[in-house]
Amino acid sequence: MGIDAHRWLMTAPGAPLARERFDARAGVGEVVVAVAGCGVCHTDLGYYYDGVRTNHALPLALGHEVSGRVVDAGPGEERWLGKAVIVPAVLPCGECDLCRRGKTPICRAQKMPGNDIHGGFASHIVVPGRGLCEVDEARLASSGLTLAHVSIVADALTTPYQAVSRAGVGPGDLAIVVGAGGVGGYCVQVARAFGARVVAIDVDEAKLAAIGAHGASLTIDASAHDQKSIKAAIAAFAKSEGLRPTEWFIFECSGTPAGQLTAFGLLVHGATLSVVGFTMAKVEVRLSNLMAFDARAIGNWGCPPESYPAALDLVLDGKVALAPFVESHRLDDINRVFADVHHKVIKRRAVLEP
Amino acid sequence: MGIDAHRWLMTAPGAPLARERFDARAGVGEVVVAVAGCGVCHTDLGYYYDGVRTNHALPLALGHEVSGRVVDAGPGEERWLGKAVIVPAVLPCGECDLCRRGKTPICRAQKMPGNDIHGGFASHIVVPGRGLCEVDEARLASSGLTLAHVSIVADALTTPYQAVSRAGVGPGDLAIVVGAGGVGGYCVQVARAFGARVVAIDVDEAKLAAIGAHGASLTIDASAHDQKSIKAAIAAFAKSEGLRPTEWFIFECSGTPAGQLTAFGLLVHGATLSVVGFTMAKVEVRLSNLMAFDARAIGNWGCPPESYPAALDLVLDGKVALAPFVESHRLDDINRVFADVHHKVIKRRAVLEP
Repeated sequence: MGIDAHRWLMTAPGAPLARERFDARAGVGEVVVAVAGCGVCHTDLGYYYDGVRTNHALPLALGHEVSGRVVDAGPGEERWLGKAVIVPAVLPCGECDLCRRGKTPICRAQKMPGNDIHGGFASHIVVPGRGLCEVDEARLASSGLTLAHVSIVADALTTPYQAVSRAGVGPGDLAIVVGAGGVGGYCVQVARAFGARVVAIDVDEAKLAAIGAHGASLTIDASAHDQKSIKAAIAAFAKSEGLRPTEWFIFECSGTPAGQLTAFGLLVHGATLSVVGFTMAKVEVRLSNLMAFDARAIGNWGCPPESYPAALDLVLDGKVALAPFVESHRLDDINRVFADVHHKVIKRRAVLEP
Repeated sequence: MGIDAHRWLMTAPGAPLARERFDARAGVGEVVVAVAGCGVCHTDLGYYYDGVRTNHALPLALGHEVSGRVVDAGPGEERWLGKAVIVPAVLPCGECDLCRRGKTPICRAQKMPGNDIHGGFASHIVVPGRGLCEVDEARLASSGLTLAHVSIVADALTTPYQAVSRAGVGPGDLAIVVGAGGVGGYCVQVARAFGARVVAIDVDEAKLAAIGAHGASLTIDASAHDQKSIKAAIAAFAKSEGLRPTEWFIFECSGTPAGQLTAFGLLVHGATLSVVGFTMAKVEVRLSNLMAFDARAIGNWGCPPESYPAALDLVLDGKVALAPFVESHRLDDINRVFADVHHKVIKRRAVLEP
């Protein structure tokens, strides 16, 4: 007998998500996590509204930003029982040639909840025990955060963490974040925590105001400026602050063609452009500018589980503010919440709690 | 009194190059090199036929693949007198903050002959002594090459050398070179010398045949295959040879929109796309594929002078064949040679010798 559980299934793009009962049970190497919270990500909306295909056939429970408590553990994973955990958004197999060579982000046997396996819009989720990130509940309590809220560490925080870390951002660098939303806002805060001065660009004044109070030294409303004046404003900021005119770190987090064009247009000599957001759309760019500027563009798929503890530390140590950017909703309201996020009625990261 | 010298000036795009006499003299930190040979590069044709702007105002002598002998040396550079040298295509200043931090490719005070200063389509060229690459004349003689021919080490060889080196190609890797011409052909050979198995893609059967005999294990005529079948052919080759289906190293050397689209379309998980060729044209790509594949695109501007000796070693050690891919022409025939290279009458790298 497994645990009496339920989850909300996507049956087709745009069709109402449907509640389904299921027996949650842990197989070998697996655990059952009683979900505390699951964040609603742009990627979920891409599946649901834009027809981006999930790897697992529908019906499927979406949701890949999951925190909770381990309530059942299969053989080999008993050490997790009772622990508070974050489930990494991408779970590499840990055993293949790629994993052994440290290339876990491209493990071909990786499992992403809500894409390869049933996700976290559920009362319970069954996942491999390998790679879970333990949450220190004493520190969590001190931080004033709930276990549900740190669900968004998976993806919303760790994805920019990986991007900032991989790009090599350090003290005194200039970082530019395009798209200061669910992921980009944390990208601003992480880059700041790594020592950079940060410029945030968005088309939403409310988001810019919020991130201006949490890590961004300069905010630019892209809807009110053309590409040339945006670049000029950043160059002037860099000059006035004694930052370099070269080697800017640009993080494209909007996942929109307009944002990608803005980001690509900000290339300077020795720049690093990190492609963090996703869109199916193509953009027209002068690819040779990478050559002319001796610059690079780095794609980032998820974040290795090994880096989750360090990312979580930024939150628990108060270096990244999480509370102002999340809001709780009832899982049973998932259909309304999806619509409200899609129509930007909800502007903060929505966390669905069973 | 300087040395009685002459050079061929570009006065305007498309206008006949004009011979001009000048006094060649070395200032502080400079040398005068009696040119042995200067290679004709796609970049020269870009200035001359496509209106790409040189950094230095016209009139200007083009040519950035220069070898020769030092015949005069200014204060501080006397050690070079009489030596056979290759002049790096990009000469960083060596003194600025960027140079001190090892970021010489993006030094803002760098000098590129034939772009920032008068180039090598001349009897003599005046350049900074710093960063010259000495050519061991005994080894050169043993290799059967002329000093004029190794001019093309500057740029045609060192640029792909830097790209292959920076990308991190190693034994057992799969490298794919798009555009097997003046630069791409050497890219194939360098990647092979670094231990990779190499696939060459071009639209010119003669070039493919030539490079098939010098380092490429598989050649593909892009004019006879669509993007999908090219990728399938490479995947089949990788499988049959026991090479990885991931982490391909792709080198875009054609400097054409079609080549860039082909190269971008070959991204696989963990791929590295090196942008080596240049075109002013834009291309329409799904930039997010970098994210989805956890891949990266690296631009490469020139090659640090420090890497020239190692690149030259590949030639002198016979690991990179140079002779089959160059042909000598008289500098006085520069106008005809430019036209013949432009119209692909000359298919090998033309080296102009005074």
